[in-house]
Amino acid sequence: MKVNGTHYRTIWLRDDGWTVEIIDQTKLPHRFETAKLTSLHDAAHAISAMLVRGAPLIGATAAYGMALALRADPSDDGLEHAYTTLLATRPTAVNLRWALDEIAAAVRNQPRAERAGRAYQRAGEIADQDVALCAAIGDHGKALIETAGQAKPAGASVNVLTHCNAGWLATVDWGTALAPIYKAHDAGLAVHVWVDETRPRNQGASLTAWELGMHGVPHTVIADNVGGHLMQHAMVDLCIVGTDRTAASGDVANKIGTYLKALAAKDNEVPFYVALPSPTIDWTIDDGLAEIPIEQRDARELTHIAGKTANGDVVEVQVTPDGSAAANHAFDVTPARLVSGLITERGVCAASRASLESLFPEHAENAA
Amino acid sequence: MKVNGTHYRTIWLRDDGWTVEIIDQTKLPHRFETAKLTSLHDAAHAISAMLVRGAPLIGATAAYGMALALRADPSDDGLEHAYTTLLATRPTAVNLRWALDEIAAAVRNQPRAERAGRAYQRAGEIADQDVALCAAIGDHGKALIETAGQAKPAGASVNVLTHCNAGWLATVDWGTALAPIYKAHDAGLAVHVWVDETRPRNQGASLTAWELGMHGVPHTVIADNVGGHLMQHAMVDLCIVGTDRTAASGDVANKIGTYLKALAAKDNEVPFYVALPSPTIDWTIDDGLAEIPIEQRDARELTHIAGKTANGDVVEVQVTPDGSAAANHAFDVTPARLVSGLITERGVCAASRASLESLFPEHAENAA
Repeated sequence: MKVNGTHYRTIWLRDDGWTVEIIDQTKLPHRFETAKLTSLHDAAHAISAMLVRGAPLIGATAAYGMALALRADPSDDGLEHAYTTLLATRPTAVNLRWALDEIAAAVRNQPRAERAGRAYQRAGEIADQDVALCAAIGDHGKALIETAGQAKPAGASVNVLTHCNAGWLATVDWGTALAPIYKAHDAGLAVHVWVDETRPRNQGASLTAWELGMHGVPHTVIADNVGGHLMQHAMVDLCIVGTDRTAASGDVANKIGTYLKALAAKDNEVPFYVALPSPTIDWTIDDGLAEIPIEQRDARELTHIAGKTANGDVVEVQVTPDGSAAANHAFDVTPARLVSGLITERGVCAASRASLESLFPEHAENAA
Repeated sequence: MKVNGTHYRTIWLRDDGWTVEIIDQTKLPHRFETAKLTSLHDAAHAISAMLVRGAPLIGATAAYGMALALRADPSDDGLEHAYTTLLATRPTAVNLRWALDEIAAAVRNQPRAERAGRAYQRAGEIADQDVALCAAIGDHGKALIETAGQAKPAGASVNVLTHCNAGWLATVDWGTALAPIYKAHDAGLAVHVWVDETRPRNQGASLTAWELGMHGVPHTVIADNVGGHLMQHAMVDLCIVGTDRTAASGDVANKIGTYLKALAAKDNEVPFYVALPSPTIDWTIDDGLAEIPIEQRDARELTHIAGKTANGDVVEVQVTPDGSAAANHAFDVTPARLVSGLITERGVCAASRASLESLFPEHAENAA
């Protein structure tokens, strides 16, 4: 999507054909800086220090990291070392392992001289594939926004509430939850986004607000506490959020606080959609609440906040009293009964195993 | 309640018998400082600059402000000037006008030489009355905590979730929502409090966490997003919140985000109580959602956060991108259907006009 009028992806190859460049997301929203990755070490650091984040983008960065490693050392030992180094950067990310396996399969048993080239090619395909998948989610979701708009007075904006950042910064381009919004906006539909701040890491206030602003999409940042009030007063037409892991039953694990918004949507008859690329579906899980483990992260993410001072410096401040304990549950599970629909790359379906299997018959329990 | 082992109220007279002293709440939680009020101007500034906040404490401070003013100028003009000056500090606070009227009634038509003395006496009564009322709320609410504890294994803490600050810092002592917790803790019951951070003004993370910590009550600060997840996993035994205004029907206007917690409590069969002194009941309102206006405050409360830097300075930082709009709806309305009970100074009752009228028959629509 656009940054200062220029189209960007979150990761790309420089003109030299081998240096990888990324947007350094740790600097957002206060500074737009890119970083060059020229080694395995650079790529591993970019992932572990969260210069890149979001499962699809982590996968693409890891794939390019393999290519950078093989360029320096195309031996079997080099391949093995790159694989284990990158896998250790974010051990729980499913896309990470998948991307590493894809590159390993593309180069294993190939002549050493060809390995780096094949790795670069496959990494590029992985990135392009993510873009295509997100664009398809965007097209399907755009139709929902269009329909919501038809129920409103001519010219009135469709108000979409989103939580956390499931935008293009979390993917290679387009995003998941925000892809329908970009598609609608680019098609000339009037759309306005309520952006949940998303405490404690503030991905909404920092990343979602930044990327919507840069692309020119009207938006308003709100505290996470506000969405229920807005829905009570018919100020939200639909909710669209992303997901980290979706149970085959349609239960959705996503950023902490998603469940509260889904409850408010249900209570006020506001449609609540979850946008997801099919790789985030865990076909082995039926009861998301009981079976999806919830990560507890460092309490410091809650007790300390980074921001920009009046003179432009970015500093971290403590917002809780010395000595007060803090807890930081990072995700919650929204039961399928609260989800109006799942927006996948193959279309929109109900949040149920039967509906998901009808879109993805290759995953049906009784599939041949 | 206690600060560093010493019992404090939020407002008191110094040993000289006329200087008023308050806790400067703008410095919390990072610094505990008191401020002396020796003039009408001091008192008005303390209210308008929010050195004191919370409806009962604002009322008590205004009452003492009248006494300070009459000490300097006991004329009718002086009385009138003090009344209008103090009333303008927080024009929407109901307790403020009530306290001013009480003092005016106590001194009007009295000899000038006696006016200041009478004002000080009435102000002291207003403060003591607030303490008695909050203590009674505490006793009634403590029984609910005790009952919840009886359903748990011996020694297990009762987990209470609260939102915003309805603690002793919002009153003269004890608080409203926190009074039952202090009463339970002081009686030796094991109680642990989940403290909602309460964005955007962070009254939970700063004030509630501070006062619980100072009094020695076990507590954990959480992001506002977390409560639903905790309730899904049976980690909350009951919720107790305060209220700014309660409709006669039992609809409750309170800090933004209260409604979302009430939805989660309902969805998980967690009792959701609202603690309130009866003066916050608006007997003229039946539909809180339609009839209680919701204040929108400065967006800067959301876009900027004050905190303590590593070297101990307190600074304000911007957390949103330049140019992103922000909205700051300060309160929401929780429908009576989501409220398990109202904890008043006369006992606990259902959130309905009939139940409230049975506790407060003098307000019954058919009262003589």
